[in-house]
Amino acid sequence: MGKQDEKKFVEHITPRSEDFSQWYTDVILQSELVDYAPVRGCMVIRPYGYAIWERIQQEADRRFKATGHENVYMPLLIPESLLLKEAEHVEGFAPEVAWVTQGGNETLQERLAIRPTSETIFCAMYSKWVGSWRDLPMKYNQWCNVMRWEKSTRPFLRTSEFLWQEGHTIHETPEEAQEETLQMLDVYREVAEKELAMPVLCGRKSDSEKFAGAVATYSMEAMMQDGKALQAGTTHNFGTNFAEAFEIQYLSRDGKLEYVHETSWGISTRLIGAIIMTHGDERGLRLPPRIAPIQIVIVPIAAHKGGVTEKANEVFRQLTDAGFRVKLDDRDTVSPGFKFNDWELKGVPVRLEIGPRDIANDQATAVRRDTCEKAPVALKTLAEDLRKLLDEIQQNLFDQAAKLRDGRITDVHDMSELTEAVQTGFAKAMWCGDPACEDKIKQETTATSRNMPFDQTPVGDACVCCGRKADKVIYFAKAY
Amino acid sequence: MGKQDEKKFVEHITPRSEDFSQWYTDVILQSELVDYAPVRGCMVIRPYGYAIWERIQQEADRRFKATGHENVYMPLLIPESLLLKEAEHVEGFAPEVAWVTQGGNETLQERLAIRPTSETIFCAMYSKWVGSWRDLPMKYNQWCNVMRWEKSTRPFLRTSEFLWQEGHTIHETPEEAQEETLQMLDVYREVAEKELAMPVLCGRKSDSEKFAGAVATYSMEAMMQDGKALQAGTTHNFGTNFAEAFEIQYLSRDGKLEYVHETSWGISTRLIGAIIMTHGDERGLRLPPRIAPIQIVIVPIAAHKGGVTEKANEVFRQLTDAGFRVKLDDRDTVSPGFKFNDWELKGVPVRLEIGPRDIANDQATAVRRDTCEKAPVALKTLAEDLRKLLDEIQQNLFDQAAKLRDGRITDVHDMSELTEAVQTGFAKAMWCGDPACEDKIKQETTATSRNMPFDQTPVGDACVCCGRKADKVIYFAKAY
Repeated sequence: MGKQDEKKFVEHITPRSEDFSQWYTDVILQSELVDYAPVRGCMVIRPYGYAIWERIQQEADRRFKATGHENVYMPLLIPESLLLKEAEHVEGFAPEVAWVTQGGNETLQERLAIRPTSETIFCAMYSKWVGSWRDLPMKYNQWCNVMRWEKSTRPFLRTSEFLWQEGHTIHETPEEAQEETLQMLDVYREVAEKELAMPVLCGRKSDSEKFAGAVATYSMEAMMQDGKALQAGTTHNFGTNFAEAFEIQYLSRDGKLEYVHETSWGISTRLIGAIIMTHGDERGLRLPPRIAPIQIVIVPIAAHKGGVTEKANEVFRQLTDAGFRVKLDDRDTVSPGFKFNDWELKGVPVRLEIGPRDIANDQATAVRRDTCEKAPVALKTLAEDLRKLLDEIQQNLFDQAAKLRDGRITDVHDMSELTEAVQTGFAKAMWCGDPACEDKIKQETTATSRNMPFDQTPVGDACVCCGRKADKVIYFAKAY
Repeated sequence: MGKQDEKKFVEHITPRSEDFSQWYTDVILQSELVDYAPVRGCMVIRPYGYAIWERIQQEADRRFKATGHENVYMPLLIPESLLLKEAEHVEGFAPEVAWVTQGGNETLQERLAIRPTSETIFCAMYSKWVGSWRDLPMKYNQWCNVMRWEKSTRPFLRTSEFLWQEGHTIHETPEEAQEETLQMLDVYREVAEKELAMPVLCGRKSDSEKFAGAVATYSMEAMMQDGKALQAGTTHNFGTNFAEAFEIQYLSRDGKLEYVHETSWGISTRLIGAIIMTHGDERGLRLPPRIAPIQIVIVPIAAHKGGVTEKANEVFRQLTDAGFRVKLDDRDTVSPGFKFNDWELKGVPVRLEIGPRDIANDQATAVRRDTCEKAPVALKTLAEDLRKLLDEIQQNLFDQAAKLRDGRITDVHDMSELTEAVQTGFAKAMWCGDPACEDKIKQETTATSRNMPFDQTPVGDACVCCGRKADKVIYFAKAY
């Protein structure tokens, strides 16, 4: 990359070190992932951003189906009376609900909520569909839009409307519900780590951080490059809370009426924000090959010279046929240098340059987006070599993120250590279990408890806040 | 099928000849495609129904992408001021808009419409994104939910909320926009005819039937088994109507500011209703193999006998690996007869019975849902034979539907012939072009003009209504 190009980027994208938040905004707008909509707090997901979402959907959906889940579609609107049925739930969501009060020219008798989440409507249907234990489990999921009337919004991270999937399942026994809750967390972890190359910490939420109406909430937490936490997916075990409110009963194997045990779980377009803030750099996005809409961009060099355009087209067809997601950038209105910048900004994992010298040597020149390393690739073994290269890039992005994260997790033993640790990363601490300690930490540091990891190997024996005896290992961090 | 089973069906599904509308309702509820929601006019799409929609989406989406379209996501809510910008458009949609007036605890300053369709928001974004002719065309599509506050509703056919895709494209020239409008109609025709095995009549809508704000609307019209028309997909050429209202201008090749030429087009979950009413029979659904969620159901016969369960499992794995969508019905709580009824109701194209006698003969017994014909299939050539059989069923369903339709299209020359023809099917007539004649026909017969087919070979020279000189060939029918 030449000096002038570098300068151009300095002008365009705010450096991460200077203002991480502005860097994020610069990157998402310039890479054309998203745009602001003429509706308060809502976003327009542009083709390049939506193509990432489609990749995430595909990878998650096939795992949902492989674990026995089926997709359905429930109505967007939920009558107020239905939303009010589970007390904790309505308390948690009512303040951020958008209400429909008019249909055509008539004023509605009852307000209708645009779903902030769909537990209540799934429950209403489950109570209608379940008869006996033979009908269980029911393991349904839906891909849809939801709306939460947020006060301050940021594209992908927190918007009034967003896209997500919400799984809702009902089971015979508490054990099965718990197993489902943990299984889906593990499916999420696999999607995050294998597809998004994003390491996550999985564990249980504290009672004050759990979902409105849940008995237990589990989350996967990722660390962004500014050291802040992003809750990237949650799964909930409701026990019989909703079943009791909605009277979802089944005739058990013993011939008794019993309440079902229920779970729900969700990931959203927020994951796109997580990818950006996990992998991006000063030049823009760096997309993991497995979810990149374009894995390889071919840029012809000196395209006017004999054979270059032909060879570029030939390679494009060859790689497309081999199953890669490939783009041939044959624009004749911009220079190769402009194209390099453009595709680096868009985070395409591999750029393949093909020029007269390459052709003379029966090769192309591959440039990795993750390391900017440049190396010749023989045309004879192109597909095979690129497959390896993409795997390497995928792994390297994961390793870089894991290294950065692990270097910023600090075992802390008192408030002063905690306060310092959460300036740059996660604090791993002992906690007595008292919500008052969580509150105090939040008040004093703005950090919140993230989750209690499954590996509970102690890092001390006294609560990081009150000093009393403590047996819970927990992460604290500032969070998105 | 035994007598008792037949009796069971007579009790369950109203015969088509007796009450087609009740037959439809019986079939969609009993086959568990859909259920009524606790929200006025809305439906719950159950797993089996949603799986059909996923198949339709896949088949349509790959064709959209192959013709150069990209998916995006636009906000659900549209500010009233934006909806009001194009006069005809708002007039067409305002009466059926659901309005959000409250967000959380605040009353909104401006009402927000839940999108009945998204022309206005696409236009707002296009006006922001387009600079010069180099940015054109922009060919975007979105898969989403929309809402129209309908007075009377029927699942799939007309509901307050439904799922659809809406393509929105902008172009440099009127010719390109027209080409796009016709190309997408042809894509729809291909999806309908090749995937849904549903023959359609393509043509242009009359001015009174066109979309609010369009210069020209084209449709594909299918005939249901009761002879009524179902508009199965529409494409619109807006000319510069919306571009002028929303100021979508680009710098042309001549350096002048010009308005873009715009199109939009959509198909919806309505197609599921169309499949049911095109192919269904007294036993329930008959699904075309290409969109059937389950193409082959394996039913073990005398499963307790040695080797049957093993062989059924082996065949299941073999067919699944060969790429078929297969279900093994190994329930031990119901009889084979019950299973036969169940999968016939659900319209699975092929039932494969495997019993001791089959195994002894190295065969299985295949039963076609379309004809109920039963024939042995050698296990040795099973995959190959089933592939052929599914292709045959797909073709036969199309042929049956085309035959039924063609037999019910009548060339008519006066009002009396037209009135009779639309009792049982479509009337093909000459029309002078005067909307007053369409009105009169609608008043007298409840039939509406469907479209003017591309093949305008005359069926007379006088208007079917007023008798004046007429040069337009047009279809009239009662419609869903």
